[in-house]
Amino acid sequence: MARHVVTGAAGFIGSALVDRLLAQGDEVVGVDDLSTGRRRFLEAALATGRFRLVERDVTDPAALEGLLAPDVATVFHLAANADVRFGVERPRRDLEQNTIATWNVLEAMRRAGAPRIVFSSTGSVYGEAPVFPTPEDCPFPVQTSLYGASKLAAEGLVQAYAEGFGIRGYVFRFVSIVGERYQHGHVLDFAAQLLRDPARLRVLGNGRQRKSYLYIGDCLDAIQVALAAPSTRKVEIFNLGTDEYVTVDDSIAVICEELGVTPRREYTGGDRGWIGDNPMILLDCKRIRALGWTPRLTIREGVRRTVRWLLENRWIVPEART
Amino acid sequence: MARHVVTGAAGFIGSALVDRLLAQGDEVVGVDDLSTGRRRFLEAALATGRFRLVERDVTDPAALEGLLAPDVATVFHLAANADVRFGVERPRRDLEQNTIATWNVLEAMRRAGAPRIVFSSTGSVYGEAPVFPTPEDCPFPVQTSLYGASKLAAEGLVQAYAEGFGIRGYVFRFVSIVGERYQHGHVLDFAAQLLRDPARLRVLGNGRQRKSYLYIGDCLDAIQVALAAPSTRKVEIFNLGTDEYVTVDDSIAVICEELGVTPRREYTGGDRGWIGDNPMILLDCKRIRALGWTPRLTIREGVRRTVRWLLENRWIVPEART
Repeated sequence: MARHVVTGAAGFIGSALVDRLLAQGDEVVGVDDLSTGRRRFLEAALATGRFRLVERDVTDPAALEGLLAPDVATVFHLAANADVRFGVERPRRDLEQNTIATWNVLEAMRRAGAPRIVFSSTGSVYGEAPVFPTPEDCPFPVQTSLYGASKLAAEGLVQAYAEGFGIRGYVFRFVSIVGERYQHGHVLDFAAQLLRDPARLRVLGNGRQRKSYLYIGDCLDAIQVALAAPSTRKVEIFNLGTDEYVTVDDSIAVICEELGVTPRREYTGGDRGWIGDNPMILLDCKRIRALGWTPRLTIREGVRRTVRWLLENRWIVPEART
Repeated sequence: MARHVVTGAAGFIGSALVDRLLAQGDEVVGVDDLSTGRRRFLEAALATGRFRLVERDVTDPAALEGLLAPDVATVFHLAANADVRFGVERPRRDLEQNTIATWNVLEAMRRAGAPRIVFSSTGSVYGEAPVFPTPEDCPFPVQTSLYGASKLAAEGLVQAYAEGFGIRGYVFRFVSIVGERYQHGHVLDFAAQLLRDPARLRVLGNGRQRKSYLYIGDCLDAIQVALAAPSTRKVEIFNLGTDEYVTVDDSIAVICEELGVTPRREYTGGDRGWIGDNPMILLDCKRIRALGWTPRLTIREGVRRTVRWLLENRWIVPEART
């Protein structure tokens, strides 16, 4: 029975990971400040008796004090700001919640002798990627968002701590993840709009941005496959995505179908929905596929499940959104 | 007459840049906390009447308050921790002095409407580079030092601010710079050892690490050439180095020749002098050369000038070093 620490344990991906680790018989300490995480996502976990939730904020350097030790098999560091869009009102947010928080986690691990970190990075580190599908070793990219830059910075810290202090690193560059407990992103935004007014949908950009999404179950499968595979590298880096993309319009079609609505679409225009938005995301996932992993759901199926879950869990859908 | 702000103005590269900008008739405000910078380097600058030194630490978010405006042509952000080696005693140093400080500068620029930043990055962002000579768009590298990781993080912030807020960015990835006012690095370490004991030289690694160095005058020429060239990119990235390398042993030979000593060399062994040391650094500098720049000094000439300057400025050589 292995012991793990999961930061961001009450979030979408974090809570699903906690459930998965518990299902394989492990013990988990979850850390979450519950600023965007939800205790509700952890009800089943708490009922197992093998999970403990510690309410702390990883932007505090002392957040992991007393929780780490050499026999903690893995620190899954998922706590992060997950909003890709630029925020002039809180420009320091990405730096603090993604970069400095990751440094805090690494430094706590170094001091406690914790051996292995799994870091949730993002396909956004490729900026406007120089090649499609984008492999892990594509030409050195230029950052186009503070979100991507802050995650790239954190990746670099993970890599440097692996080299300097022997902490094994696993970096997963996700596309957007969809599925049960989804609580942030375009599917929720569109669903919220349509539940409020089924006749009208406002779309950032021209709807033709090409995006990749991955179903949460497939994402967790991939992480487990990667961790179980033999490795001689100090840091393993894996893209996690599907080999397909959908346009924003494709995604809207699925959402509308599930909701049974046919809104008038109002596009803000342009091939980028916001500053730092990528007109196209398509990751080359040969590395993880070479280990035997393959996603079970298509993007459309993943989006569909997400909408169904949102409809069954309307408490997650914000009442008013413009 | 353009106005500029230079952070790290009292440092090796900073003070040389200040002199260069003043020589072309510009006005300069220098910012330096004098923790490693030297007021002495700025005597000529202060005598011009067009230079002002502000003693502030850029790790303080308020450091640039009152110094920036839309008519400040360029912010040259050179303030940094320049020690590549891992410091377990001060593990947060690179994060604070390189990454967070750069964020502070960018954020101050955004708020004040300052239009252009020049950022001094490093060839260390290539880690153990996947290709030699290493071009700016080489395969996405893995970080091997906190120094490199912290500079890469800062590059990403510069790029994101360029995309999000329209601040023009120039990123220069330097090899190690040598020349007059050199006050940190292997030439000084070796010279200090040999001035103390000419019979014996302790060398980190096996002496066969291959390194590139660039003369300070050539470095400043390159920056001026790059800034003067037409550009349509939001961020310009340039490697700055020579097309040659020398081994640590080659460099030692020049140093010993200038000092007139023939020490017994004691190697600590291994192809890396310290954790995060690169067995080889050789940057592909075609991009900056395409603008007409070419270095005037060879690496050996640069090292030679450095030793001569150190001998004429013994006050800079630490008395005791192991």
